[in-house]
Amino acid sequence: MDTSGKMGPIATSCAQVVAASERPTARNFGERAARIGRLVELGIRCPRTVAVSIDAVGAEHGGAAMDVSPVLDQFEPRPLLSVRSSPRFSRCGGVGVFLWVGLNNAALPMLAERIGRKRALHAYKRHIRNFAYRVHEVEIDSPSRQPGQSTRECEVEVGRLLESFRRKVGTEFPQSPSEQLRAAVRTMAKGWNKPSARLLRTARGFSGETGLGLVVQEMVLCRSSRGMRVWSSQAINVETGRKDFRVGIGEQANSADIATADSEVALSRGWEDELRRIHDKLRRSLADEIQLRFADDGTDVFVLEYGVLQKSVAAEVRVAVELVQAGVIDKQDALLRIDPENLASLLHPQVSPEANNRVIAKGIAASPGAASGAIVFSSSAADVRAARSQGCILVRAETGPEDIRGMHIAQGVLTGRGGMTSHAAVIARGLGVPCVAGATNIDFWPQSGALVTDEGNIFREGDTITIDGTAGVVLEGAAPTLPPDYGRAVRQFLDWADCCRDLGIRANADTLDEVKIALRFGAEGVGLCRTEHMFFDESRLTVMREMIFASTPAERRQSLEKLLPMQRGDFLQLFQSLPGKPVCIRLLDPPLHEFLPHDQDELADLAEAIGLSLEQLTARAEELKEFNPMLGLRGVRLGISVPEIYEMQARAIFEAAAEATARGISVSPEIMVPLVTANREVVLVKRQIDQVAEEVRASTGVDFEFELGVMVETPRAALRAGELAANATFLSFGTNDLTQLTYGISRDDSARIVDEYVRLGVFPADPFSRIDREGVGELLQLAVSRGMDTRPDLLLSLCGEHAASADTIEFSRQAKFSYVSCSPFRVPIARLAAAQAAIRQRRAAG
Amino acid sequence: MDTSGKMGPIATSCAQVVAASERPTARNFGERAARIGRLVELGIRCPRTVAVSIDAVGAEHGGAAMDVSPVLDQFEPRPLLSVRSSPRFSRCGGVGVFLWVGLNNAALPMLAERIGRKRALHAYKRHIRNFAYRVHEVEIDSPSRQPGQSTRECEVEVGRLLESFRRKVGTEFPQSPSEQLRAAVRTMAKGWNKPSARLLRTARGFSGETGLGLVVQEMVLCRSSRGMRVWSSQAINVETGRKDFRVGIGEQANSADIATADSEVALSRGWEDELRRIHDKLRRSLADEIQLRFADDGTDVFVLEYGVLQKSVAAEVRVAVELVQAGVIDKQDALLRIDPENLASLLHPQVSPEANNRVIAKGIAASPGAASGAIVFSSSAADVRAARSQGCILVRAETGPEDIRGMHIAQGVLTGRGGMTSHAAVIARGLGVPCVAGATNIDFWPQSGALVTDEGNIFREGDTITIDGTAGVVLEGAAPTLPPDYGRAVRQFLDWADCCRDLGIRANADTLDEVKIALRFGAEGVGLCRTEHMFFDESRLTVMREMIFASTPAERRQSLEKLLPMQRGDFLQLFQSLPGKPVCIRLLDPPLHEFLPHDQDELADLAEAIGLSLEQLTARAEELKEFNPMLGLRGVRLGISVPEIYEMQARAIFEAAAEATARGISVSPEIMVPLVTANREVVLVKRQIDQVAEEVRASTGVDFEFELGVMVETPRAALRAGELAANATFLSFGTNDLTQLTYGISRDDSARIVDEYVRLGVFPADPFSRIDREGVGELLQLAVSRGMDTRPDLLLSLCGEHAASADTIEFSRQAKFSYVSCSPFRVPIARLAAAQAAIRQRRAAG
Repeated sequence: MDTSGKMGPIATSCAQVVAASERPTARNFGERAARIGRLVELGIRCPRTVAVSIDAVGAEHGGAAMDVSPVLDQFEPRPLLSVRSSPRFSRCGGVGVFLWVGLNNAALPMLAERIGRKRALHAYKRHIRNFAYRVHEVEIDSPSRQPGQSTRECEVEVGRLLESFRRKVGTEFPQSPSEQLRAAVRTMAKGWNKPSARLLRTARGFSGETGLGLVVQEMVLCRSSRGMRVWSSQAINVETGRKDFRVGIGEQANSADIATADSEVALSRGWEDELRRIHDKLRRSLADEIQLRFADDGTDVFVLEYGVLQKSVAAEVRVAVELVQAGVIDKQDALLRIDPENLASLLHPQVSPEANNRVIAKGIAASPGAASGAIVFSSSAADVRAARSQGCILVRAETGPEDIRGMHIAQGVLTGRGGMTSHAAVIARGLGVPCVAGATNIDFWPQSGALVTDEGNIFREGDTITIDGTAGVVLEGAAPTLPPDYGRAVRQFLDWADCCRDLGIRANADTLDEVKIALRFGAEGVGLCRTEHMFFDESRLTVMREMIFASTPAERRQSLEKLLPMQRGDFLQLFQSLPGKPVCIRLLDPPLHEFLPHDQDELADLAEAIGLSLEQLTARAEELKEFNPMLGLRGVRLGISVPEIYEMQARAIFEAAAEATARGISVSPEIMVPLVTANREVVLVKRQIDQVAEEVRASTGVDFEFELGVMVETPRAALRAGELAANATFLSFGTNDLTQLTYGISRDDSARIVDEYVRLGVFPADPFSRIDREGVGELLQLAVSRGMDTRPDLLLSLCGEHAASADTIEFSRQAKFSYVSCSPFRVPIARLAAAQAAIRQRRAAG
Repeated sequence: MDTSGKMGPIATSCAQVVAASERPTARNFGERAARIGRLVELGIRCPRTVAVSIDAVGAEHGGAAMDVSPVLDQFEPRPLLSVRSSPRFSRCGGVGVFLWVGLNNAALPMLAERIGRKRALHAYKRHIRNFAYRVHEVEIDSPSRQPGQSTRECEVEVGRLLESFRRKVGTEFPQSPSEQLRAAVRTMAKGWNKPSARLLRTARGFSGETGLGLVVQEMVLCRSSRGMRVWSSQAINVETGRKDFRVGIGEQANSADIATADSEVALSRGWEDELRRIHDKLRRSLADEIQLRFADDGTDVFVLEYGVLQKSVAAEVRVAVELVQAGVIDKQDALLRIDPENLASLLHPQVSPEANNRVIAKGIAASPGAASGAIVFSSSAADVRAARSQGCILVRAETGPEDIRGMHIAQGVLTGRGGMTSHAAVIARGLGVPCVAGATNIDFWPQSGALVTDEGNIFREGDTITIDGTAGVVLEGAAPTLPPDYGRAVRQFLDWADCCRDLGIRANADTLDEVKIALRFGAEGVGLCRTEHMFFDESRLTVMREMIFASTPAERRQSLEKLLPMQRGDFLQLFQSLPGKPVCIRLLDPPLHEFLPHDQDELADLAEAIGLSLEQLTARAEELKEFNPMLGLRGVRLGISVPEIYEMQARAIFEAAAEATARGISVSPEIMVPLVTANREVVLVKRQIDQVAEEVRASTGVDFEFELGVMVETPRAALRAGELAANATFLSFGTNDLTQLTYGISRDDSARIVDEYVRLGVFPADPFSRIDREGVGELLQLAVSRGMDTRPDLLLSLCGEHAASADTIEFSRQAKFSYVSCSPFRVPIARLAAAQAAIRQRRAAG
């Protein structure tokens, strides 16, 4: 068979009609046919191909017998054909290929001439056996092929198989090519509609009714081991995205029926050049890097089809950047290609795909990245490890503020309770520490210093484990990891994103370390600086506790005076590391009992340290206890009932601002009042803060500006935003708390409820992961419109766990927010998501 | 002086002008003048009177000297006058009276003729001394009056006083009546404007600028001990309101300068008849019962003024009812007179006003009424007392569900923490048990079984105390009490209220006892039956706990099958005691851990009872713990994650309904789903309940109807009410939880925050006592309008602590609610408040 001039163009067959001019679409002919159509259109050499439409295959299954002669007419008189499935969507799966269709007694000599007699006989044997099995569901006895079989023995075996076919099937093996082709089509149509195949499609997220087209292709013959050699090639490294031309052997799918070439591939220079040209053509046409499947006839290559290459995020980004640089796509197209969430894997080390450590627990992928270290059950144990420069993983049933120090020290965090918005998860993401939360299938025995797995294996303090916060699993021992990849291409890519977006991105950052990460990842300022974390340092915590146990305002003021220079130092460092950038500082928010010791030993130590009896201390600590701390004495309520605290904080901020200004650093402090419910709260705090500002201006002689705003976290604050905006120049929406209160669900206790609700479809999604537009969203919108009515230049923003999600960013743009503020490690994600939202809107507007 | 023909009419003096025809108004002349004007108008005999206007007194104080001759012109040539203050509002307080104005050397013989020479001389002495002291602030030496002083000695003393006046004051004692009157007016004007007097007015809630008028009246002289006798009379008993004509002596105010009559009063028949006629005239004119002040000249009575009688609520109601029956006022007027909150004192025994027991603690008046008993610190100690038929007072730092049993048993409750909506307060009001909550000035040492007061006094278990839940105080020992008074008049009055109101009133009732009280107090049905309270009985609690610790759904179902007949019995009793009346049953709401034991001993007992190890039990109990139980796994979330519970409850309700129906009792069960946030929750529960209903209809062969509704307690449910109404035929607003979530304030922890906020004016009122119209109210209104859009015949109601307040009732009517549901003991209050709201609206509409 001389194929060189006859490959392509593709012909399409819709039912009985063949029209060589019709360009097959995926909708009518399936994705494989459409892709081959594109190859033909680009003038790439393909085998001659006929596409059978989805309707025609459907009709065949429905009982209409297809007239295959118009298909056969497209090929030379004795065709040897492959019939492949071309489902509407390639990810649906398919039906096994039919090869050698048309091979019969008459065609055998021609095939023998092309690939040699023995190989031709082997092909015929496979064809007969396969036909019996696939079309008639009959297995024909055949001794396993012996390596040393002679040509003669092969001929005898063919005769035995034809005889066996007649006996077992009841008819002669069909010698007519059209009969063979019709049988192949009917078998594939039936296979596609089997219950098991339909179920599989459903499981993959497609409709059971998804249609199947077929692709009938002339086989490319070669004098190789099985008469046909299939190769694959790709032009880049899928991990890095760098140029790296490679040719491999065969294909994964349908490999059982495809001949494999030698494992070592040495292409002729001519082939490689041609393939590189084809890749380049397709790259320009498809604006992506693909994998080619091709066959050769010993001289030329014939492209059978191509597929989308599964690439790492780094590779995706590099490919996109290079396509822009090559003028194939524009920057906006490039930005739209990457799912922002996928960037997360670039920002942390990852467990290597080659790791084969045993999985000992599964939980929620609460903070991405990989970390190995020795198990510790407390912050103090983490201290000990850190002193010896040993890595550790903090393991707690659940975390609280007293664990933050340990979380700073530890390389990873594992908790037994809590979901995506548990304390551990929120803090870990903020710190960029890998975390697996809510690992419910292990038992925590912190008292006896042990973890017990489902299978009864015990891990003790000091045993090494690996946290895979990207996958949400815990591995035994130290698993191999890959370093984070955030190279030139990603930086370039995110710079483009910054040019496209119209929503500001700030970071939630409480410490200098977090500020550094935030700046490295491109944050434009700090949107939420939680001052409470500044008090958890051991030396400060004692003073803080002294303040809490003060029995008079004067005593309390004394303790606060010790804290003042510390806070002033904190803020000065912040301002210095963020010159000219806005810093939004939230006044003290958590209930005071969060700062108290939790066990008797610590209480006794504290009693000694501050000179109170243990009874007095215990009694006061009891008094501070609350049934529902989330709904208790915290936020501005604390600021109003113990006004000395906010006064000290305001003084620290202003003295730091004055000092920074005096040093020539441009400073933009924004002070935020938390947990507001009534306008009068803002009025009282504003009065106090304005007065402190005046005092500091007078005492330092430095003039500085600041803004005062309100954190909208309660439904009532949202409803009353019109009033609040009269005394606030900005509103920042704390969607975590707002979601908690709108639903009456605590995020700390939510995991088990919300998971079950999402599973049962009660909630379409976890409202702590994806903003609830119907409830929380309506409150936000009410607040925005009421606030803007009062103050048209009101600055609006959103901070909290939701902030960096694409969905929230889209919402925030629609709601005319100025910026969102998220954990430093999510800043790149937010930058891209914001760019995409802007591009999509511009495109939708035409 | 012949006064008989010259008494009245009143003349008024505005500045210098006197116009006898002008009727003095309280605005221009003060309340006393206006009242005397009314007496004159009614033809009641009064002394001749001239009113001096507020403007004239103000001008006098401002420096303008009043021309008193037009005043004096109204009296006979040698008048003896009293000058009394007539402030704009009588409750402002006043300035001391001037008596004997006009008494001088020339008038002395006339006076001597009227009342005897010695009495006349005594009056003159008092007048001179008083004038020096009040007008000139000079004390004139005078030996104390000796009882046996002769007329001669009196004459000598008058001379000495006139001499002493001249020497000490520097001028002669003024003999001119006009000079005396001018001095009196000036002195009183000055006294009214002293800083101390202004402060007193402010303290009483009036402006410091409130004006003063004066009343100048001819003195009624009598040959009595001091020349003038003042009496008071009233026609009813102020405690009961029953007719009970009494005459008393003197008056409380200004008593120092008024002569007192003998303590035994024997009126002539003529006087009594005349006074009864005057009372009757005034009752008809004022539509109220008053106290008269009158003087006599030995022959006739002259009315000096009248005052409003301070009556008990029972008396107020009886007076109102009798005024209606006498045709003086109509029923609506009667209904508007009584503050609904005041009815509370009729529904419980009260501490007698005569009690003089020492107050040992103060707190919040959380549930009205009085109760005495021995201190107990636990439900089990209460049990022991009850077994011995001894009364007891349950004393707890705070209460939880495990104390409900004790609260049922105890006669009163005292807690150290919590406000009006703390657990203790809510339950106590529901049970009608007197309660003082949040008594922060005593220390609770339950471990050592003692209470320690501020003053260091120790009360131990078994010591007797009295709870005054009406006043919010705790008394030492058993204080005397008055029984509750809810007589015929009150019933009549509330029947009228029922005729006027257009808002339904139901009761929150969980037990038969509560239902009985509710019916006695006029509830039209049960608006909230909290099924959880049915499980706190000891025998059921164990089965409930067995259910909670079940390790498989099958085991759980087994425990629930034991609970089923108990619940069915509960509901059958409910239906039987409320034939034809609606009963709204809330499915299980609280988090399961509320049913768990709280100490190790109880846990160990339970472990034994249900055959689990203490470790397993403790672990499971730990798992159920929540940071913020209010925001945790409760309400419909529990119903969905453990569907067997609601299934059992629905079955119990329906089987009871079927049985009641079969017995010919008309049954209207309404089933309410608590803590809804998403429509799908309602859909799932509705599907389950409808199925159970079908099963029970099929198995019993009885057809019964029921309604399914949603309790709107979360802001999200309010926002999504439009959707919810598609599957709910009624919405009941739980304003306690809705307020908690809208504000982000827990009612259990609210007392200290909210109290301080109300004190600082941050909140205008405690949002748990008075519905917050701006925030919570807006959510309610949104929910109503959205719900009605979906289902125009949606039944709307409100249950919770707010329900019986006048403010909430007004709001509920405006919002078109069908009914409110409150604690049984507040049903009469709600009935009256609803009537008042309806009447006020009709009147405002004209």
